[in-house]
Amino acid sequence: MAAERFGVPVVLVGDPDRLGDVTGLPVIAASEVVAMDAEPASSVRRLKDSSIVRAAEAVRDGAASAVLSAGNTGAAMAASLLRMGRIKGVSRPAIAVPYPVIGRAPTTVLDCGANADCQPEWLVQFARMGTAYARQRFDIEEPKVAILTIGEEAGKGNTMVKTAVTLLEDNDWASECGARYIGNVEGRYLMTGVADVIICDGFTGNVVLKSLEGLYDIFRAAVETALSETGVNQEAEDVLAPVFRHFDAKATGAAVLLGTRGLTMISHGSSTANTIANAIRTADEMSTVGIVDQVRAAVGAADA
Amino acid sequence: MAAERFGVPVVLVGDPDRLGDVTGLPVIAASEVVAMDAEPASSVRRLKDSSIVRAAEAVRDGAASAVLSAGNTGAAMAASLLRMGRIKGVSRPAIAVPYPVIGRAPTTVLDCGANADCQPEWLVQFARMGTAYARQRFDIEEPKVAILTIGEEAGKGNTMVKTAVTLLEDNDWASECGARYIGNVEGRYLMTGVADVIICDGFTGNVVLKSLEGLYDIFRAAVETALSETGVNQEAEDVLAPVFRHFDAKATGAAVLLGTRGLTMISHGSSTANTIANAIRTADEMSTVGIVDQVRAAVGAADA
Repeated sequence: MAAERFGVPVVLVGDPDRLGDVTGLPVIAASEVVAMDAEPASSVRRLKDSSIVRAAEAVRDGAASAVLSAGNTGAAMAASLLRMGRIKGVSRPAIAVPYPVIGRAPTTVLDCGANADCQPEWLVQFARMGTAYARQRFDIEEPKVAILTIGEEAGKGNTMVKTAVTLLEDNDWASECGARYIGNVEGRYLMTGVADVIICDGFTGNVVLKSLEGLYDIFRAAVETALSETGVNQEAEDVLAPVFRHFDAKATGAAVLLGTRGLTMISHGSSTANTIANAIRTADEMSTVGIVDQVRAAVGAADA
Repeated sequence: MAAERFGVPVVLVGDPDRLGDVTGLPVIAASEVVAMDAEPASSVRRLKDSSIVRAAEAVRDGAASAVLSAGNTGAAMAASLLRMGRIKGVSRPAIAVPYPVIGRAPTTVLDCGANADCQPEWLVQFARMGTAYARQRFDIEEPKVAILTIGEEAGKGNTMVKTAVTLLEDNDWASECGARYIGNVEGRYLMTGVADVIICDGFTGNVVLKSLEGLYDIFRAAVETALSETGVNQEAEDVLAPVFRHFDAKATGAAVLLGTRGLTMISHGSSTANTIANAIRTADEMSTVGIVDQVRAAVGAADA
């Protein structure tokens, strides 16, 4: 779909026998697979001929411009980090996830799970990387950057967040990376568009992401069940379909790992074919605008 | 409403002139108010004749069995802690919030914001306090206790959570407080009923709570807007009203501060009269079953 519809050159990585029915697309052979529930780092080290390792190597070696995986997220991160390496000035790569906002561009939230424990200075880097990404991906000239915490007033947060806020306030965001730092936001503003980039540690980001996915699934099912008991089912279903699609994590854009020396995109494990095709197109666009170089510039400017 | 409908003896605390139109209810005079956006701890120390301080004193002195506030949450916590004191064996009180689960009892989540930074051993206490509460409030004989983290596999979490898990696994939950420890849960299971008590640090708990409230508000508004554009509006509205009510934080039960030597309940700032009346009834029930003594027993058993 991505190749035909968008003209993106796609390379498949995996077992050639199992990929044999995808006609016309080149295949990079890989004989092993990192299972969804496998321990990521050790699996990537051990399974040197796994599809995710070979795909990351293809990016490293210039045979591909980006890797897209809907498999084991930790393995995609580990393979990218080990095979591509980190951008200079990036302490830790972070997972950036676009949160849907009604009527305007999504808000990029990071870190959504790469780093369970974060140092305050990493959050400053996340802000820089997120700024570069929001600008390139969503055409936001001067992204507004906020930190996720437990109150809007200054001084609200845990120790790590409070230290990070001090560091964030120390930056001249406009001149250093063209962003505008707007301070604290609470969780209730994640999807309202008050900020274009929201930063947090990877533990909080991952728990929040999964909590929201959980509520979405339950709430949507409850609404559908209630409506199915009325005679208005079909019409309501038709009008609600775009609403559900808007909030559906499986339908929204792929997450991206920012901070490695190559582009890695991560799709939801239950993505549809359509979602994967769109993610491939996004990967192509991000590669074309040189997102890795943009991130490098956003982070590197700090050392200037 | 609470007094008339449920026969709960209610005492009002505040400015007698402003409470003059609530006929028949006794009033404890308080001339000051801690504003919603005031800094909690210093306000409570300074405003000794504020309604929340006087209310906490009424509980301390036996003039009331519980305090219910829909005002400044931090001030309610600070007043309770300073005027009532901590239960012996409780390092830090925690805010427990009932998360709605379709078709069964809510899941009690704590800490939802009392402690932005937590020591791992505090989470063990939260588990004990939450167990006592879930048993008394929701009639769950042997509550299932889980810890909120970023993966279901053992070893998933940040450093604090991983240490807490080690401590949690060391406990003989059945004999010590009649609970069953079931290990890790991800955010997506907060509202599915897989656990009766879910523990986390107060930063994570507060961010998640507000994130879910935010998604709920946005999703509900989007569904209502979409349906209003069809001809099926009224019928759909009628059938969806109970669904919305089920998930509405303003309609679900009040939060409770566990760990102080008196009962403090905290309602949402935008609660309806009905919600407040229900919260008063819950406070009455919790007071009648001696929830403070139950929490004391659950925590104290650890030292035996």
